[in-house]
Amino acid sequence: MTQPAGARQNAVRAKAHLARRAARVLAGASSERKDAALAAMADALDAHMPDILAANAADLVNAEHGDLSSAVLDRLRLTEHRITDMANAVRELIRLPDPVGQVVRGSTLPNGLRVRQVRVPLGVVGIVYEARPNVTADAAALCLKSGNAALLRGSASAYQTNRVLVDLLSAAVASTGLPAEALLLLDAHRSTVAELLTARGLVDVVIPRGGAGLIEHVVNTASVPVIETGVGNCHVYVDEAADLPMAEAIVVNAKTSRPSVCNAAETLLVHRQIADRFIPRVVTALQAAGVAVHGDPDVVRLADDVAPARDADWATEYLSLDMAVRVVDSLPEAIEHIARWGTGHTEAIVSDSASAIAKFVAGVDAAAVMVNASTRFTDGGEFGFGAEIGISTQKLHARGPLGLPELTTTTYVVTGTGQVR
Amino acid sequence: MTQPAGARQNAVRAKAHLARRAARVLAGASSERKDAALAAMADALDAHMPDILAANAADLVNAEHGDLSSAVLDRLRLTEHRITDMANAVRELIRLPDPVGQVVRGSTLPNGLRVRQVRVPLGVVGIVYEARPNVTADAAALCLKSGNAALLRGSASAYQTNRVLVDLLSAAVASTGLPAEALLLLDAHRSTVAELLTARGLVDVVIPRGGAGLIEHVVNTASVPVIETGVGNCHVYVDEAADLPMAEAIVVNAKTSRPSVCNAAETLLVHRQIADRFIPRVVTALQAAGVAVHGDPDVVRLADDVAPARDADWATEYLSLDMAVRVVDSLPEAIEHIARWGTGHTEAIVSDSASAIAKFVAGVDAAAVMVNASTRFTDGGEFGFGAEIGISTQKLHARGPLGLPELTTTTYVVTGTGQVR
Repeated sequence: MTQPAGARQNAVRAKAHLARRAARVLAGASSERKDAALAAMADALDAHMPDILAANAADLVNAEHGDLSSAVLDRLRLTEHRITDMANAVRELIRLPDPVGQVVRGSTLPNGLRVRQVRVPLGVVGIVYEARPNVTADAAALCLKSGNAALLRGSASAYQTNRVLVDLLSAAVASTGLPAEALLLLDAHRSTVAELLTARGLVDVVIPRGGAGLIEHVVNTASVPVIETGVGNCHVYVDEAADLPMAEAIVVNAKTSRPSVCNAAETLLVHRQIADRFIPRVVTALQAAGVAVHGDPDVVRLADDVAPARDADWATEYLSLDMAVRVVDSLPEAIEHIARWGTGHTEAIVSDSASAIAKFVAGVDAAAVMVNASTRFTDGGEFGFGAEIGISTQKLHARGPLGLPELTTTTYVVTGTGQVR
Repeated sequence: MTQPAGARQNAVRAKAHLARRAARVLAGASSERKDAALAAMADALDAHMPDILAANAADLVNAEHGDLSSAVLDRLRLTEHRITDMANAVRELIRLPDPVGQVVRGSTLPNGLRVRQVRVPLGVVGIVYEARPNVTADAAALCLKSGNAALLRGSASAYQTNRVLVDLLSAAVASTGLPAEALLLLDAHRSTVAELLTARGLVDVVIPRGGAGLIEHVVNTASVPVIETGVGNCHVYVDEAADLPMAEAIVVNAKTSRPSVCNAAETLLVHRQIADRFIPRVVTALQAAGVAVHGDPDVVRLADDVAPARDADWATEYLSLDMAVRVVDSLPEAIEHIARWGTGHTEAIVSDSASAIAKFVAGVDAAAVMVNASTRFTDGGEFGFGAEIGISTQKLHARGPLGLPELTTTTYVVTGTGQVR
C-alpha cells in the first residue's frame, strides 16, 4: 500500500486482465467442474479455520484502535460458527441449477433461421463491500457458480481476513483445475475503488454492497455498469381494514427481528380511521421490544414516550431499534409518503380489503410489495433462490434479490443454412 | 433557446416531473386504452403529413446551410412514404402483446407466502438520438405501449420536425384520455443532454441512439442508468470448412444490403487454408458491388485493387461501402481478433464443421452470433419481436434487440396471511 498511484492503477488493470482471461475459461467450464470447485472452497474454509481466525483477530486489533462503531466491529468479527455458516452457504450453491447454457427463449423464424437466447456469464464482476468478510466467500462462490470471475474490493478494516480467505479459496479453485484467478482481491487503498469503477472494457459490472454513502459514491464515479443494492427505507402501511393483531405482529417483526438489515422496516404509516385503536397498542408493543418511537403530532398525542418526528426521520434508514410512525388520512396519502421517502426496496400493506391491496400494489414503486406479511421476507433465501449477492433497488437488469440468473447475461445464437436479407 | 442555463435546467427537471406524473397514470392503463392511443397516434401521423413535411423542409433548409454530411441529411429527410412507414410501425405495435402485468415467475413458499414476479413499466425513459425523426414516433410508441413516459432529446438539426411530431402525437394520446405528457420533447440546447443524464430519481433509464461518440459521451456523463446501443463493428469469419458460394453470398449481403446500419459487417476474416481460393473471388464480388477493400498483406497479394489495411481499419465501424479483410491462421486467431476489435454486437461464422461452430459460439462474446447466416438478421423485426428501440451491446438488463419486454422491469408481489420471520 506504499506504491505510487500509477503503479496501483496498473495493478488494478493488471488484475482485471487476469480476471478476464480466467473468465473466458470459466465461461466454458461444465457445471460438474464448477460444483467440484465449490466443494473444495467450502472444505478449505473448514480446514483453515485457525488461519482465518488469526487474520481476523489481527484485523480486529487494528480496528479497535480506530473509530469504528461497535456495529461495524460486530460485522467484521468472525467466529468458528460464522466460518461454518460461510462454508455451508458455499455448499448450498452446489445443489442450485447452473444458469449458464439455459435457453431463455427459442423459435424458428419463417425463413428457417433458428433463434435461441442462451444464458452466458457476465464475465468479470467487481464487488465493492464493507466490513463483512463473509461477503468475500459468498461473492466468490456465486460468481464462480455463474461462470464469472470476481474482482473483490473489501474494506481496509477487513483486509487481512480477506487476504487469507481469497488465498485459500483461490487455491481451492486451482486444485480442481479451474483458474486460480477466478477470484482476485484488490488492495484496500482508497484509489482502487475508482480504478475498478472506470475500467471500461475490462470489468463488465460492479455491484456495491454497503450503506447509502458507498452506493452513491459508486454510482456517481462509475463508467462501468453498476447494479445498485441494498438501501432499504421500508414502510409498513396499516390500512383501515387491517386485522389489528396481525398488523401488530407484522410491524414488530419487521422492525425488531433483525434491525440492522436492509429489509427491516423503518417507518409505520397508520390509517386515521384506526389510529385511536392501533397507535397506543403498537407503540406499547414496539417499546416493549426496545424500540424508540419517533412520531408525528397525532402519534405523540395518542401514545406515551414518543419523540417528535422530523423530516430526517422519514428519510432515514435507521438500521437500529428506532421507528418513525405517522398517521395518514388515506391510502393515497400513504402511497404519496412512500413515493417521497421510500428507496424502492420493500413496502408492506396490512389490510383485509382486496381493493385497498390492489391500489397499494399498483401505486407503490418498489422491488417488492408485501401483502399481509413482514418486510423481512424480501430475501433470496426466503424466496427459494438460494444465496444472494445483494438486493437490487434499481430497475435495470434485476430488481430484488440477486441470485445466480441475475449474474448472467444472454446471447442470441442464430443458426441458418446460408440465409441473407 | 436563449434562456439562461439555470432556467433550462429547471425546464428539464420540470418536464421530468411532468413525465413522472404521467408515468404513474400510464403504469395503470389497460392494454385496450394504450392500443387506442397508438391507433390515434398513427392516424395523426397520416392526417398531418403536410405539417410534418413543412417542418422537415424548414429543418432541411437550415441543415443545408450547416456542414452536415449527405448521409445525415438523408436520415433527416422525411417523405410521404417515410411518414406512412412511421405510422405503420406505430400500428404494428398494437398487435404485439402488452408486457405489463405478465407474471415472469411465481411460486408458493413452504410458509404459504405466494410470490409473483410481475412485469411493470420502467417509469420515465429518456431517449437521446441523432438526426432521424422516425425515432421520435418509434420511441414514443414503444414507450407508450410498455407503459412508460418518454422524455425525447433529438438533435438540433431535426428540432422543428420533432416539435411538430411530438405536438401531434401527444395531442393524439390526450384525445384518448391518457396524459398528453406521456411524451415530452426537450429543447435541443447542448446542456439538456447532461441535465437529462444526471436527473437521478426523476429519470429511470436513458437510452442513447446514435454513433460511438454519442454513446461514449452519454456513458461517461450519466449518473442515471444507461442502456448502450448500436455500435456494431461486426465480423464475418469464413472457416476452412466453409461452403464458399454460401460464404460469398453471406459476406456480400452482410456488407452491402444496407451499409449504414449497425448490423452491417465491417471486417471479413478468412482461414488461411482456403484463402487462395476464397480471397480472389470474394474481393471481386465485393468490388463488383461497389465495395472498397482494405486488406492485410496476404489479401493485397491475392487480389487486385486492395488498399493496405492499418489498425484503424480493424477498429472502424465504416457504415459505408468499405470492408477490411484479413487472413487468419486459425479459428482461435479469428476469435482473438474479434475479442480485440469487436464491439460485442454481431459476429458471424460460415462453416460446415460442427466443432468449429461450437468453438466460435462459445468463444466470441457478443449480443448475437450468426451461424451460416448474414449479420443483418440481428434486428427486432427479423427476430419477430416487432419494433425495437435499439440494439443493446451491453450485458446488463438487455442484450441484442430491445423490444417491449426490455422496456419493463419487475416487482415481486408477495401475498401472505400474517406471516412473520
